[in-house]
Amino acid sequence: MSDTGAGRNGMDVFTRLKASALADWQSYVDHDFVRQLGAGTLPEAAFRAYLVQDYLFLIQFARAYALAAYKSRTLNDIRIAQEGVAAILAETELHVRLCARWGLSRADLDAAREEQATVAYTRFVLDCGAAGDLLDLHTALAPCVIGYAEIGRALAPDGADGPNDHPYREWIGEYAGAGYQSVAATARRHLDDLAARTMTDRRFAELSALFGQAARLEADFWQMGLDLGAR
Amino acid sequence: MSDTGAGRNGMDVFTRLKASALADWQSYVDHDFVRQLGAGTLPEAAFRAYLVQDYLFLIQFARAYALAAYKSRTLNDIRIAQEGVAAILAETELHVRLCARWGLSRADLDAAREEQATVAYTRFVLDCGAAGDLLDLHTALAPCVIGYAEIGRALAPDGADGPNDHPYREWIGEYAGAGYQSVAATARRHLDDLAARTMTDRRFAELSALFGQAARLEADFWQMGLDLGAR
Amino acid sequence: MSDTGAGRNGMDVFTRLKASALADWQSYVDHDFVRQLGAGTLPEAAFRAYLVQDYLFLIQFARAYALAAYKSRTLNDIRIAQEGVAAILAETELHVRLCARWGLSRADLDAAREEQATVAYTRFVLDCGAAGDLLDLHTALAPCVIGYAEIGRALAPDGADGPNDHPYREWIGEYAGAGYQSVAATARRHLDDLAARTMTDRRFAELSALFGQAARLEADFWQMGLDLGAR
Amino acid sequence: MSDTGAGRNGMDVFTRLKASALADWQSYVDHDFVRQLGAGTLPEAAFRAYLVQDYLFLIQFARAYALAAYKSRTLNDIRIAQEGVAAILAETELHVRLCARWGLSRADLDAAREEQATVAYTRFVLDCGAAGDLLDLHTALAPCVIGYAEIGRALAPDGADGPNDHPYREWIGEYAGAGYQSVAATARRHLDDLAARTMTDRRFAELSALFGQAARLEADFWQMGLDLGAR
Repeated sequence: MSDTGAGRNGMDVFTRLKASALADWQSYVDHDFVRQLGAGTLPEAAFRAYLVQDYLFLIQFARAYALAAYKSRTLNDIRIAQEGVAAILAETELHVRLCARWGLSRADLDAAREEQATVAYTRFVLDCGAAGDLLDLHTALAPCVIGYAEIGRALAPDGADGPNDHPYREWIGEYAGAGYQSVAATARRHLDDLAARTMTDRRFAELSALFGQAARLEADFWQMGLDLGAR
Repeated sequence: MSDTGAGRNGMDVFTRLKASALADWQSYVDHDFVRQLGAGTLPEAAFRAYLVQDYLFLIQFARAYALAAYKSRTLNDIRIAQEGVAAILAETELHVRLCARWGLSRADLDAAREEQATVAYTRFVLDCGAAGDLLDLHTALAPCVIGYAEIGRALAPDGADGPNDHPYREWIGEYAGAGYQSVAATARRHLDDLAARTMTDRRFAELSALFGQAARLEADFWQMGLDLGAR
Repeated sequence: MSDTGAGRNGMDVFTRLKASALADWQSYVDHDFVRQLGAGTLPEAAFRAYLVQDYLFLIQFARAYALAAYKSRTLNDIRIAQEGVAAILAETELHVRLCARWGLSRADLDAAREEQATVAYTRFVLDCGAAGDLLDLHTALAPCVIGYAEIGRALAPDGADGPNDHPYREWIGEYAGAGYQSVAATARRHLDDLAARTMTDRRFAELSALFGQAARLEADFWQMGLDLGAR
Repeated sequence: MSDTGAGRNGMDVFTRLKASALADWQSYVDHDFVRQLGAGTLPEAAFRAYLVQDYLFLIQFARAYALAAYKSRTLNDIRIAQEGVAAILAETELHVRLCARWGLSRADLDAAREEQATVAYTRFVLDCGAAGDLLDLHTALAPCVIGYAEIGRALAPDGADGPNDHPYREWIGEYAGAGYQSVAATARRHLDDLAARTMTDRRFAELSALFGQAARLEADFWQMGLDLGAR
């Protein structure tokens, strides 16, 4: 996993960030919601609640990539970020179709209220980007962008590659698939590029704190799914 | 209460916003935390947890007023916002002293982690301001700035003006006092001024949604205090 | 020309803005650079200098639309702005090819320094958007987005529809063409939509000042072309 | 001059930036406007034109420090930036009084139009800060904040410490004085602190380009004074 990196000790920046905020990271990628999702035991109500909030999440996520485009200085960087926005907008359409299969109409989605956990993580990311630079922004996005690939891969044996009747087979397959894995690999390299430009040793501690906070807010997002599903 | 306004029906904008998001507003100003605070029955652990998060809140709050100064176009508007930043920085010093009387050192405060509810409301406000204009920013700030004056006034009979041994007498007195009431009255007039410039009827519905969301996030902030106090 | 508008007196917002800042507007659309361009007498050196700076302009212009996407609240508004970014990125590729026909390589373009006039207009627009709301941003963009359509149409009889050997026939045809005219018509309607949401009478004077300043900065941009061509 | 620095070769970051963009720097600090100011031969009309634009400049400059406060993460950094805003607001009052002695009323100042050179430098700085981080912002501000101290010191022998009837004695004395020299020294150390956090060797080239562009825009600002004075 560390062979993509340009950092010291052969570790890429993402690996270093994870190692430095391990407890926060584990609270996110090993969250009960994730375990139940993988085991296929997650209550449908929890998954549906998650899907609705994830739709609202994607809107803010598109804004975060637009922010990255705005903060870019070269045509190439603008283009990369713009393609990110376009990809997220396409993903929301997929999301709407996935929701439809779970009985959630677009009207349901648009009428939904943002939960505290959705507000907390999305606005935290946007504020990291507005107040900081592109490395701050992409560090705050990493638990989501790269973390989902890690979760998808971890769940694949039981999910996407498992029994046909696994209820969350499609979701797991999406993030375990080659397409999304490639997106995440690109994001890891991008983090390395940005770090090579503006990360000193002194700054790493700050980025690690930011990364850990983002991972905790992602864990809170899973917890929200469980809590709403239990109501 | 409506005699300060310049809006229609003799109501100022703040009054209209409250009326349009009444359930959200009540969930905030009549929250159990507030009732227990007024009755003096709030567990000390809840109050202390609140104080710590409120300190972290003030840091982001100072940033919100700095954002208002940045977004201003005239020297006068910059000056008003700058005085807001200075006032909040002074308030944090008062806050540190208040915390000390509750056994919380500055080191405790600086070592504290931001809770989800703190992140959610503060970054929501900052994002409203970054993405929108000054009216969006001040509408998102209003539940805090103006709401605390309303809460202080409502609790005063039992608190600041009540028995000397009320545990939260000092806190209530701070917000019920003439100084803070005047700050809030100025903020109400400022909201009217901003609305006269950029608020059409069509926009009011959007501002009301934003105001309601901010009030709910404030209610979540109180709930966090209760939850942390019960741990 | 005013039949697109939804504003009072049958005038759309763009028409009102032009009327309110007429001298500034005329200094831009009737600038000597424009007249010489239409007459085909503009020195080639001036046109080439303009092309280079216009390339640098487009980079910032793409950032301005990314800023609009970031400042959007709905998927639809994000999508519209994102398509704007994509269109500008495509336009820069066309621009590079146009430059190639005038002997300017991509390396020439990337090595070029931004002139004062390029910095002034582009950063003014970006700051209007960052400090204000979407209406401020699109008002500052209007002289460029909508003004070029007006200039193209005015020059078409002599240029795109004129003699085959007109040196600037291609440039004029681009902006006089149905494709660009449609882009500009959409931008006018968008300005009306935004104004219906956040423009009061009191605000119009501010927007007019901003629009006039943007038009003057566009006139300065033409002047820069003449000045550089005369060196 | 390099004894304040923490950088390599004993040079502080400001010294390295100057050395890397020397031609641009000289075009600014040795500009004809500066020479004539020092010699006392600068036409009064040029100086007055400069004073008016410098007043408009200060408004944007205050916004730039408010942006720094907004982008800060700690109370201490917010406080430092906020004191910067307060100092600039105080400086504008001094500026109004200086202008009055040159026959310029506050009404003259408020009615003045921003010249292209004023827009270009100020919005460039603000955009550097909005798109980048605090190091970008303070690098773009450095030619102004630190450069004026260098110019003041260079002109002091002829100006502040020269004959009593030197027409620009007061202006030179302001920037040559211990108070302003200390402000500039603090700004140099701040630049070093920021660089220690986020400046890698790879980034230095970008900062140097940004610094050089800012110095050229400052030179354009002087030129504007000469041009307006010659009308």
